[in-house]
Amino acid sequence: MSIMLEEIFEQPSVLERTIAAEREKITKIGDFVRQKDIDVIVLVARGSSDNAALFGRYLLELTTGIPVSLSAPSVFTLYGAKLRLSRALVIGVSQSGEGADINLVLESANASGALTIAITNEDSSPMAQIAAETLLIHAGRERSVAATKTYTGQMLQFYMLAAAIGDQRLHYQQIPLLAEKALELHKEVQQTALRYSFMENCVVVGRGMNYGNAYELALKLMETCYVVAERFSSADFFHGPLAVVERRFPVILFGPEGVTKESSIGLLGRLSELHADCLSITNSGEIAGASTRSVRVAEGVDEILTPIPFAIPAQLFAAYLSEAKGLDPDAPRSLTKVTTTI
Amino acid sequence: MSIMLEEIFEQPSVLERTIAAEREKITKIGDFVRQKDIDVIVLVARGSSDNAALFGRYLLELTTGIPVSLSAPSVFTLYGAKLRLSRALVIGVSQSGEGADINLVLESANASGALTIAITNEDSSPMAQIAAETLLIHAGRERSVAATKTYTGQMLQFYMLAAAIGDQRLHYQQIPLLAEKALELHKEVQQTALRYSFMENCVVVGRGMNYGNAYELALKLMETCYVVAERFSSADFFHGPLAVVERRFPVILFGPEGVTKESSIGLLGRLSELHADCLSITNSGEIAGASTRSVRVAEGVDEILTPIPFAIPAQLFAAYLSEAKGLDPDAPRSLTKVTTTI
Repeated sequence: MSIMLEEIFEQPSVLERTIAAEREKITKIGDFVRQKDIDVIVLVARGSSDNAALFGRYLLELTTGIPVSLSAPSVFTLYGAKLRLSRALVIGVSQSGEGADINLVLESANASGALTIAITNEDSSPMAQIAAETLLIHAGRERSVAATKTYTGQMLQFYMLAAAIGDQRLHYQQIPLLAEKALELHKEVQQTALRYSFMENCVVVGRGMNYGNAYELALKLMETCYVVAERFSSADFFHGPLAVVERRFPVILFGPEGVTKESSIGLLGRLSELHADCLSITNSGEIAGASTRSVRVAEGVDEILTPIPFAIPAQLFAAYLSEAKGLDPDAPRSLTKVTTTI
Repeated sequence: MSIMLEEIFEQPSVLERTIAAEREKITKIGDFVRQKDIDVIVLVARGSSDNAALFGRYLLELTTGIPVSLSAPSVFTLYGAKLRLSRALVIGVSQSGEGADINLVLESANASGALTIAITNEDSSPMAQIAAETLLIHAGRERSVAATKTYTGQMLQFYMLAAAIGDQRLHYQQIPLLAEKALELHKEVQQTALRYSFMENCVVVGRGMNYGNAYELALKLMETCYVVAERFSSADFFHGPLAVVERRFPVILFGPEGVTKESSIGLLGRLSELHADCLSITNSGEIAGASTRSVRVAEGVDEILTPIPFAIPAQLFAAYLSEAKGLDPDAPRSLTKVTTTI
């Protein structure tokens, strides 16, 4: 079994451990943030962590009502801008905590009087030293180049933070169990992946809470399967990119029950007219029915809690597709685990 | 000649007209914004307008020091969130001014006490009615499905706004002339495009001020050439996507002189080791030298003013490549001019 698959299977225990260890601290941080007059939340990240941040963006805006900006680190690191961040909460997200650009943004934010938080898997990392508060993912070392358990661990931290700052009714405690159930699909996903052995490019679509998952699956497909994978929201997909779709073009959709369902059904209808090949990760019978094929997961789960159980079959799909293509998901060509950018 | 090409060639006069007509009004708006205690700027757009907004994000953060959030319209339209926007400037960007989702966000922003601005080509559009202030692009009707003159027109509005709010030293008055000079390259770009007649997928890379251009060229290649075109910043490209690059894989880079040059050179070096095919749009001899081939444009121009003269050869490239592929850029399959999303 690849290290990537091993780490995918560790996720329920990582999630469980993280809740147990971090819960109290995050509740206190939430109390503190609520007392402050925060006008904007800035999220700073790269790679898979940035995809977790893209999820965090929707979740935090929805639960706290505070507008969220996904930071462009080069504004600080290359252009040397000083942003007005005195009423900002700035959250750095990095598995290793070593991204020099992310850390420069956090240092600049500290200097501007912002409240800074690090979400990382490494307690003794530079990022954890720089940020005022650290939310630790208890994933153990991540050995696979392709991040999996730290991605869902970061998402969980956003849930805990959203519950602490905004909406206590967020039942994130169910997530480890939902993750475990999602893993039970591994044989089915492995079978499905075989069918895509010769896929060379595809489009991955998600919206709202599952938009970050679309970016993350596309990244996993690029990293571990060398598939040229585009990522879009179902809304943006109609603005131009739809033109690339031809007969049998593969589209992978994250399609939960809930407010995004209508737009998913609309897209699937259009794709069906174009004879595209649509694989849905869904808990909706209607979406499954409108797709060429589907992976059914997280039945009856509220949309807001679908992103982690939906991410897991996507991770499994990438890992098994890599094997089906005769590749080694643990040794993606041209990549290293920690990427340092300025 | 295609309508798309005709409209590409109209750009210098559109830009000139827009400066003459809008300058005074924008200066007043800038004075007003500076007096207000603005903590966050929110940009709301889709499609090409969203790519112009992506450019506007860098420009506004750099010149005004105010953090910018690129809005996720579904937070308002699907999830019904009410964001705290009392100290926000919210700018909607839409060629037609008819995007229902964008307009809903502006209405919600009005209700939250935000200052709202519309950037549009249609004075009598719903968006122009909703926003407190309208910045008009004087492009005349845009008949091509692929937006070109309204894209650069929107970028120009961001320059004028940035100058009015933040930095009066921004010499945007040069832009119509820079656009005219860029158009002189049309024959050279047409020749270059021929070489890519059979390109099926590619990666487009830009960073900072030219990051929006990378998104826009990728969109144009999808819309008018059916090329599966990925877009990345040169920083993110090292985080995973680099793995898709194999011998002769086409990469198109926006590589200006200036603070992003070092990262462009680093990327080109790595791509050269992988035997990728790199086409640069650049004003740097060093970047041209490190590329497989290049289009030289905007020599001696400050990086901050390169995005419009760099966008123009990219538009020409897409329009000529569409012809080289035997397609009609004015009739992209599956698309309509105005896309309405909720």
